[in-house]
Amino acid sequence: MANKPSIPKGTRDFSPSEMAKRNYIFDTIRQTFYTFGFQPIETPSMENLSTLMGKYGEEGDKLLFKVLNSGNFLNGADLNAADDTLSDVSETVRLNRLAAQLCEKGLRYDLTVPFARYVVMHREELTFPFKRFQMQPVWRADRPQKGRYREFYQCDADIIGTDSLLCEADLVQLLDAVFSKFGIRVCIKLNNRKILSGIAEVIGEADKIVDITVAIDKLDKIGIDGVNAELTDKGLSDDAIAKLQPIILSSGTNSEKLATIREVLAQSETGTKGIEETEFILHSVEALGLTNKVEFDLTLARGLNYYTGAIFEVKALDVEIGSISGGGRYDNLTGIFGMPGVSGVGISFGADRIYDVLNQLNLYPTETTSGTKVLFVNFGSREAAYCLPLVAQLRNAGIATELYPDAAKMKKQMSFANDHHIPFVVIVGETEMQEGRLTLKDMTSGEQQQLTAEELIAQLG
Amino acid sequence: MANKPSIPKGTRDFSPSEMAKRNYIFDTIRQTFYTFGFQPIETPSMENLSTLMGKYGEEGDKLLFKVLNSGNFLNGADLNAADDTLSDVSETVRLNRLAAQLCEKGLRYDLTVPFARYVVMHREELTFPFKRFQMQPVWRADRPQKGRYREFYQCDADIIGTDSLLCEADLVQLLDAVFSKFGIRVCIKLNNRKILSGIAEVIGEADKIVDITVAIDKLDKIGIDGVNAELTDKGLSDDAIAKLQPIILSSGTNSEKLATIREVLAQSETGTKGIEETEFILHSVEALGLTNKVEFDLTLARGLNYYTGAIFEVKALDVEIGSISGGGRYDNLTGIFGMPGVSGVGISFGADRIYDVLNQLNLYPTETTSGTKVLFVNFGSREAAYCLPLVAQLRNAGIATELYPDAAKMKKQMSFANDHHIPFVVIVGETEMQEGRLTLKDMTSGEQQQLTAEELIAQLG
Repeated sequence: MANKPSIPKGTRDFSPSEMAKRNYIFDTIRQTFYTFGFQPIETPSMENLSTLMGKYGEEGDKLLFKVLNSGNFLNGADLNAADDTLSDVSETVRLNRLAAQLCEKGLRYDLTVPFARYVVMHREELTFPFKRFQMQPVWRADRPQKGRYREFYQCDADIIGTDSLLCEADLVQLLDAVFSKFGIRVCIKLNNRKILSGIAEVIGEADKIVDITVAIDKLDKIGIDGVNAELTDKGLSDDAIAKLQPIILSSGTNSEKLATIREVLAQSETGTKGIEETEFILHSVEALGLTNKVEFDLTLARGLNYYTGAIFEVKALDVEIGSISGGGRYDNLTGIFGMPGVSGVGISFGADRIYDVLNQLNLYPTETTSGTKVLFVNFGSREAAYCLPLVAQLRNAGIATELYPDAAKMKKQMSFANDHHIPFVVIVGETEMQEGRLTLKDMTSGEQQQLTAEELIAQLG
Repeated sequence: MANKPSIPKGTRDFSPSEMAKRNYIFDTIRQTFYTFGFQPIETPSMENLSTLMGKYGEEGDKLLFKVLNSGNFLNGADLNAADDTLSDVSETVRLNRLAAQLCEKGLRYDLTVPFARYVVMHREELTFPFKRFQMQPVWRADRPQKGRYREFYQCDADIIGTDSLLCEADLVQLLDAVFSKFGIRVCIKLNNRKILSGIAEVIGEADKIVDITVAIDKLDKIGIDGVNAELTDKGLSDDAIAKLQPIILSSGTNSEKLATIREVLAQSETGTKGIEETEFILHSVEALGLTNKVEFDLTLARGLNYYTGAIFEVKALDVEIGSISGGGRYDNLTGIFGMPGVSGVGISFGADRIYDVLNQLNLYPTETTSGTKVLFVNFGSREAAYCLPLVAQLRNAGIATELYPDAAKMKKQMSFANDHHIPFVVIVGETEMQEGRLTLKDMTSGEQQQLTAEELIAQLG
């Protein structure tokens, strides 16, 4: 019974001071989502495994937390199927089969698949275009390490049911608005899957596109000869590499880079479309007076498995950390659940990385309005009884107020106020009770004032 | 692939309109918690099963959702232990043993045990008295039925590390404040475990206390003869029943009832202490001008397994529903984790029942401030490009604004505004662009105005 308790690895408790910081992050993002016309939904923590399995690749399936069926979980399970070392299937496959018999449900792995499931189940109630946001924890049985947890929050905003590029412009503006509010200087990177497909098409190497972007990304470090050598290593023909030269060396403004690539991709309808889309988005946000720079970056290749148009990624400029937000357009979100033709575009904020960035740059607002503002000192039962209605009066006026529950030594009560960063202490002793006044002590300056309750409320309210 | 998707039974999706109502509930409770000096913490959704098992009784253990170990979950598990039909342990025991081998973690069942675990793990960082609130989902593998879900939110506030009865007074005031804000008329019922123990002591029937409270609760329905007959049925002696008569028939004000019972319990130190505590709490809150009635109710017997002092319960007056909030004092919250002597008192709000009550009484505020306030009509690419910076300007002023993403028919865009309860539509066509003005249409009155962007912001901001 008396074992020292612990929590599962990769999970965390959040203390009041950590909660204040986290709530600042969530509130800022949430408020911006509302301002941009997104509406919240929530989905259950547990989804049917049939909803989750096969949506995140083989690796993802392994990282799903599975929930043991309740009641007789062995009911119908064929334990020998797992034990059958003579059969020719691998141990992983046997384990998966047994897990599927023992577990029908799993914990949410991301917010995208549950959202797709939501749209299909609720299609009759929804008016498209549908702009939803969702801020909920997700769970992954990943190996825990610094900055990587088994339970963490995602904050997603998506617009579905339209292929208008104004949505992409909206999301770039949203990214800019959120990071401006945080005071985090960022670069918003933009690419387009169609441009990457166009390149693959033109050089005739469709399956090499990731290798190509990885190599180009190293230009600053290893120079053009290094990039070309790496491309040769990866099996690209000399002809293909020659065609890539203008693209690898494209530089200058977004417009200049796009103009260069447009020429190379002139023969590719898809590639040209990607250029046009990117130009439209960049042109649309130009007039908006964004705080942060938007940069076309050909090497951005996130989510190639599912993104079909624009690709976004946000990098913090003043901290060495991976991307702190990202997203893109997908043409067929709900197809996996039998509802084809729903195009959408979305972004996701990584709350935990933003937390780390704000900590490192010390960017939290100093004022935390949620803590207790006034502590009434407790001198004993008579004084406490006298104070209770005054405490109630302050609370009714919306001032966060506490009466210290015990008649402890003054010093203890004062250090309690200090430990909790309570800015004001009210002292009510014999004199104050006789005069119908309160002594208000400012804990920062040490100054004291004699006030009526009404004056106190007027001053602090 | 194209199976119609579903969600696990007992779980729910929440649509934007449901979220607005739920957030109203959570925001109201959270804001009140802050005003009373409570600070938030959060704990992981998954706890070690060793933390959870044995804390909720045998029934509770069965209702825990267990999470299959990741990786090779069979590693070391003795499947035959479960299959061993020859052994003399019950199937339940065999299943539990196997589950314990397959699963190390379980989903949070309530917020109290994780809080106790939190306090023990973080004892060095905490300053007592510690006032924490926690609003998170919990999971129970209960049979789903109307109003009972497998995933639902609890909203708990506790004060630990002091046995001051001022905390009880604080919580009664908090209950009153929350339900006043909701506009739900309630009765706040108060009892004390020590009074019930005193009664058991005086009549010498310690194990019959629940039977006694259940019988007394029926007085209005079955009369004193009925109550006495039921007590006889339950095995109480005539002598015990005779001693109970003044208690059963006690009536009048709280003070009158308490005075009657005080006499009967004169010989019981514990019982007398219970009376005094209750009188202190009632007396303390009398001066606070509460909106709702606080009633001493001897038949209130919730949580007898763990409450050691005051017991609270809140009943809605205008809706037939179980209790919508409750709590009490416990003397040894953290003892199960090897940290004795921590007394605490807490309450819990049932968000789902409050949701039902607010729905039935139609008490939601009509103004939902979180939806989009202004929709810009999209007449085509030129107009859209012209509107984008105006939309940005409104958003920067904090006005929730959208541009319809497609140049759809006017009628479709207008019904979109109606469906989403968007109160204002802005129309920018050729004329408006030439004149540098916007047409603002009030969707409720149908009135239209010509305004500059600045005038619009001044009017709606």
